[in-house]
Amino acid sequence: MVGLGILGIGRIGRIHLQHLVRDLDDVAVVAAMNPSEPGRDFARRHGVPFVTGDAAAVIGHPDVDAVLVCTPTHVHADHVEAAAAAGKAVFCEKPIDLSLERVRRTLAAVEAAGVPLMLAFNQRMDPSFAAVKAAIDDGRIGTLRSIHIISRDPAPPPIAYIRTSGGLFLDMGIHDFDMARHLAGAEAVEVYARGAVLVDPAIGEAGDIDTAYVTIGFANGVTAMVENCRQSAYGYDQRLEAFGSAGMVRADNPLKTTTLLSDARGLHGGRQLDFFVDRYAESNRRELRAFVDALQRGVPMPVTGHDGLEAMRIALAAERSHREGRPVRVAEVDAGH
Amino acid sequence: MVGLGILGIGRIGRIHLQHLVRDLDDVAVVAAMNPSEPGRDFARRHGVPFVTGDAAAVIGHPDVDAVLVCTPTHVHADHVEAAAAAGKAVFCEKPIDLSLERVRRTLAAVEAAGVPLMLAFNQRMDPSFAAVKAAIDDGRIGTLRSIHIISRDPAPPPIAYIRTSGGLFLDMGIHDFDMARHLAGAEAVEVYARGAVLVDPAIGEAGDIDTAYVTIGFANGVTAMVENCRQSAYGYDQRLEAFGSAGMVRADNPLKTTTLLSDARGLHGGRQLDFFVDRYAESNRRELRAFVDALQRGVPMPVTGHDGLEAMRIALAAERSHREGRPVRVAEVDAGH
Amino acid sequence: MVGLGILGIGRIGRIHLQHLVRDLDDVAVVAAMNPSEPGRDFARRHGVPFVTGDAAAVIGHPDVDAVLVCTPTHVHADHVEAAAAAGKAVFCEKPIDLSLERVRRTLAAVEAAGVPLMLAFNQRMDPSFAAVKAAIDDGRIGTLRSIHIISRDPAPPPIAYIRTSGGLFLDMGIHDFDMARHLAGAEAVEVYARGAVLVDPAIGEAGDIDTAYVTIGFANGVTAMVENCRQSAYGYDQRLEAFGSAGMVRADNPLKTTTLLSDARGLHGGRQLDFFVDRYAESNRRELRAFVDALQRGVPMPVTGHDGLEAMRIALAAERSHREGRPVRVAEVDAGH
Amino acid sequence: MVGLGILGIGRIGRIHLQHLVRDLDDVAVVAAMNPSEPGRDFARRHGVPFVTGDAAAVIGHPDVDAVLVCTPTHVHADHVEAAAAAGKAVFCEKPIDLSLERVRRTLAAVEAAGVPLMLAFNQRMDPSFAAVKAAIDDGRIGTLRSIHIISRDPAPPPIAYIRTSGGLFLDMGIHDFDMARHLAGAEAVEVYARGAVLVDPAIGEAGDIDTAYVTIGFANGVTAMVENCRQSAYGYDQRLEAFGSAGMVRADNPLKTTTLLSDARGLHGGRQLDFFVDRYAESNRRELRAFVDALQRGVPMPVTGHDGLEAMRIALAAERSHREGRPVRVAEVDAGH
Repeated sequence: MVGLGILGIGRIGRIHLQHLVRDLDDVAVVAAMNPSEPGRDFARRHGVPFVTGDAAAVIGHPDVDAVLVCTPTHVHADHVEAAAAAGKAVFCEKPIDLSLERVRRTLAAVEAAGVPLMLAFNQRMDPSFAAVKAAIDDGRIGTLRSIHIISRDPAPPPIAYIRTSGGLFLDMGIHDFDMARHLAGAEAVEVYARGAVLVDPAIGEAGDIDTAYVTIGFANGVTAMVENCRQSAYGYDQRLEAFGSAGMVRADNPLKTTTLLSDARGLHGGRQLDFFVDRYAESNRRELRAFVDALQRGVPMPVTGHDGLEAMRIALAAERSHREGRPVRVAEVDAGH
Repeated sequence: MVGLGILGIGRIGRIHLQHLVRDLDDVAVVAAMNPSEPGRDFARRHGVPFVTGDAAAVIGHPDVDAVLVCTPTHVHADHVEAAAAAGKAVFCEKPIDLSLERVRRTLAAVEAAGVPLMLAFNQRMDPSFAAVKAAIDDGRIGTLRSIHIISRDPAPPPIAYIRTSGGLFLDMGIHDFDMARHLAGAEAVEVYARGAVLVDPAIGEAGDIDTAYVTIGFANGVTAMVENCRQSAYGYDQRLEAFGSAGMVRADNPLKTTTLLSDARGLHGGRQLDFFVDRYAESNRRELRAFVDALQRGVPMPVTGHDGLEAMRIALAAERSHREGRPVRVAEVDAGH
Repeated sequence: MVGLGILGIGRIGRIHLQHLVRDLDDVAVVAAMNPSEPGRDFARRHGVPFVTGDAAAVIGHPDVDAVLVCTPTHVHADHVEAAAAAGKAVFCEKPIDLSLERVRRTLAAVEAAGVPLMLAFNQRMDPSFAAVKAAIDDGRIGTLRSIHIISRDPAPPPIAYIRTSGGLFLDMGIHDFDMARHLAGAEAVEVYARGAVLVDPAIGEAGDIDTAYVTIGFANGVTAMVENCRQSAYGYDQRLEAFGSAGMVRADNPLKTTTLLSDARGLHGGRQLDFFVDRYAESNRRELRAFVDALQRGVPMPVTGHDGLEAMRIALAAERSHREGRPVRVAEVDAGH
Repeated sequence: MVGLGILGIGRIGRIHLQHLVRDLDDVAVVAAMNPSEPGRDFARRHGVPFVTGDAAAVIGHPDVDAVLVCTPTHVHADHVEAAAAAGKAVFCEKPIDLSLERVRRTLAAVEAAGVPLMLAFNQRMDPSFAAVKAAIDDGRIGTLRSIHIISRDPAPPPIAYIRTSGGLFLDMGIHDFDMARHLAGAEAVEVYARGAVLVDPAIGEAGDIDTAYVTIGFANGVTAMVENCRQSAYGYDQRLEAFGSAGMVRADNPLKTTTLLSDARGLHGGRQLDFFVDRYAESNRRELRAFVDALQRGVPMPVTGHDGLEAMRIALAAERSHREGRPVRVAEVDAGH
């Protein structure tokens, strides 16, 4: 039995809490922190025995073996460092921080503390995406050559969220950059990105873009082409494919039903999933399961702080490429450049 | 908040209990009965406050508004009648009994008691199958002409189960006969069935068949063709289609992933689901939700005792057709024939 | 180089002539017969050097090695017998005759003459259907258990055609009965058929049905379920599947394009093919190629007169089953019953 | 009846000749030129009455209304100019020349002569790709945002061909650049390309690349991402999709059959087409039909010399981008830069 504490009972914190309570029989959520009452009430109604507004009280709780950091991005690093200092394992929503330097400092603190840290790149756990990775690793497509990722959300988040999100590349693209790097099995070397405001001019006025086209060159010769868009009229559109010397493997979107209707106008099928809780229920469940498994078996985390750092470097390089209209080497984003 | 009592914490009882605890926030499972300790232990571990070996104690429990009958078939009728006599709403696994006369008696008792009764034909709640029904009802395929149902289980149940199951038509086919009747929107008039032992000779030695081909003529001119088989090497295969004057609508099997691999030998996709908990998780959840909704809103149950009775009459006609090698009118199975 | 003569330049004769001229480099169509001028004109415009209204002149032409019988059904047998008597190989559209006795007499004449005869069950040559047969023969689905065939035409033929067609079972179903027998790899033993008039009452007034549901039991324990319908709002619908102990293989309809559109209402694909020249262009080509190959290599024909006879016996048994409302043994349709 | 002359009876010339003879009833191929005997023999066997080794004799033939230029690239411009000077309509395989200046000169000559010229971008005529274009034009996906094209050939051409091909961008990518521009409905402004030698080092030694990733920005804000690769283990892989504010439409690869097999390992489908004659038979036929239709009806050609020029400018910009490692404005490739 693993004792868990959750910091932040907002949107993602609630999803995690529900999965932990419903689907994981061998964990106990013993403590939860939220600054405001609604989140605390949610935690109480889901049976969390100790609910507070004080993060330190959760981190320091004697029955808490591991801390889930689900707070807003700007306090992630503080919470991760505090948990590490208390010797607790950490599961952290991405990104650890919007500053590369701060991320490095936090990761150093985690390493010094010797606690395990898992970054929440849940898309790696999607069954269809994981099957693509497995096909590559099993050599079924031969030597990998290229990766294509399309990632379109049903609708943009509120402008207020966008203002503090770190921008499209760090907020949304980072998932796909992690996936590209995960599938490529190598580090990114160079990034070229074009961005645009095609969905909502208000996003542009907030200083961000809503659509991006990114080409990433990896050290092993693999190239990834990624499209991100904040809006898709037909629901979540998150597909990827990997092409190699012996074949190609791809994952398409799950549909709500397998029902197909044929009539005089043609063929008609069901909608794609348009609510991220539906689209990623399975990967969220598997992500938490993977974290707890790694804890229980004492093996390395399936997604590490280093993974988070590298995805972030790609995002920052994409950001700079878009701004400067040229391909940017990933090394350029490190301190001093 | 609806108070529920469960009779029988075996295979299907456990599945229902887990869905009720995890997924339905507005019900409380207040009492559970199981004759043996393992089922009772399961109920306790899932937070049921009152756990007993005595069905009457569950039925009579003051906080129990509705009773779920998940016991073996031969005690279904007794439990339904006892719950009805106590004025409790009833949800009953199919069939109510293997004897048509007893089913009629039980339904009469339920009607006399004036309590709602829902039969557990969960496949009606499958999202893809429900979308087929909706397409028919919305007139999208015009006047319905025919229905095709293929229903193949991954593997046959133990011979011991088969001996008391009532036979392939009553145990397995009944789901598809209900579905055919549900889609046809009419009563069955005539049934022709061919049965065979193709999977396991031991099933034949137990007096049953493992494969059947059934043609059903409905009163509105619709014809259904149904195949049932106890074994499928590739997992659950449960598909259906409806054909009408303006189109055709069909539901295929869900796959574990959307991943497709192309190589020099062709195209390769994932396996079908081979565990009924996976295949029917969603329809089981929706079935319980529908029962509770009907209770709360005081509207008729979506699947009634009459539905159970009619599906059973089709199964009995199929049984006789197979035995006598001729088409059998459904009316022939009623008392006296 | 094989010299061919064609009897009948109507709908199917024209299709064959075009394929022969366009696609088969090693044949020469040296003679053609049609009773009326338009067909003769068509033949001349496609480069046939000898065009006549006299069948005997084509059959007796010294450069004609093989005769294609594409005339109306009621003269098939006469033309086949005349060609056989002249020692010419024969390709004959199905059926040879509507009378079983006459078919037997004609086949005896062909056998006595020692000439090769191919029956035009072109659907066997459809690439997707042939791949199903190959999968069965290669043991990829283990021991065959059942076959399902759905065969729906875009629209019924004119009532005038229906009156002389021999009825739904002999005119349309016969293709599917041949396919079922071909896939089953055994002879049919018993047939149960339900027929209905669902498409057009005028078809019923002409003494025929437009929809049928047929169950065929084969000698090796395989069962086939077949649906035929004269009308499909969404174009040709001709699908089949074979189920065995180790797997299942199926062929779906080809679509006009691979284009799929996703929008807020769901997924939309292209129409099915609705013109038999499109739907069966490839199988018609392959059928003629197979006939010429068998001639050139001196090997047995891929579809024989015996195949035509057996498919006809199934059709006649289906006809009687529909009329008498009971399963009919195929042997019952032979002379004397 | 349109009289046609063909220059060059090599690979593509033979395909065109066969389609013209087989599928177009209202054209007569009256003259053909090939420098060597095998091509001339092929033309004779397909019924061309006048066959020669002299291009001028074909161009000047009094019954030749239009000339198909199917010779090697380095003589395209000469042949187009000669045909134009003789007042003949021209159909020319792409590209007109590898030099932008020469192409411009040739187009000027064609314009001065006032003859119609069609460029052979046959992929526009592919039924599935054409359906994507139609969906865009019909507004079914709203305002177009992006285009993705994947174009992989089964196997690279011989090294000797590659040496004179003009390189991957001009030889292979040009089809996809034309398609992107056709779908975008705007002119390309900026191009970023990464190229690699992943298939065969000999291609690199010949000074070319075999794989490329190209991002194209169009004047109307649309972005296209294109992958080209000279080798695909699973046959032709040519897919495209268009994404807009109201939906997404895509065209997948056609398969040899619709047959799908399910077994204990999963789902298995047929191979993709691996011979360009199969893959593009339909689009080649439709291309020739479109040329002849435009001639007969006196309307503008569906693909013009200007289209060829613009696709070429994109290819040259991609080439320079790859060489210089930076995004290149298309205007940079014009004379003087």
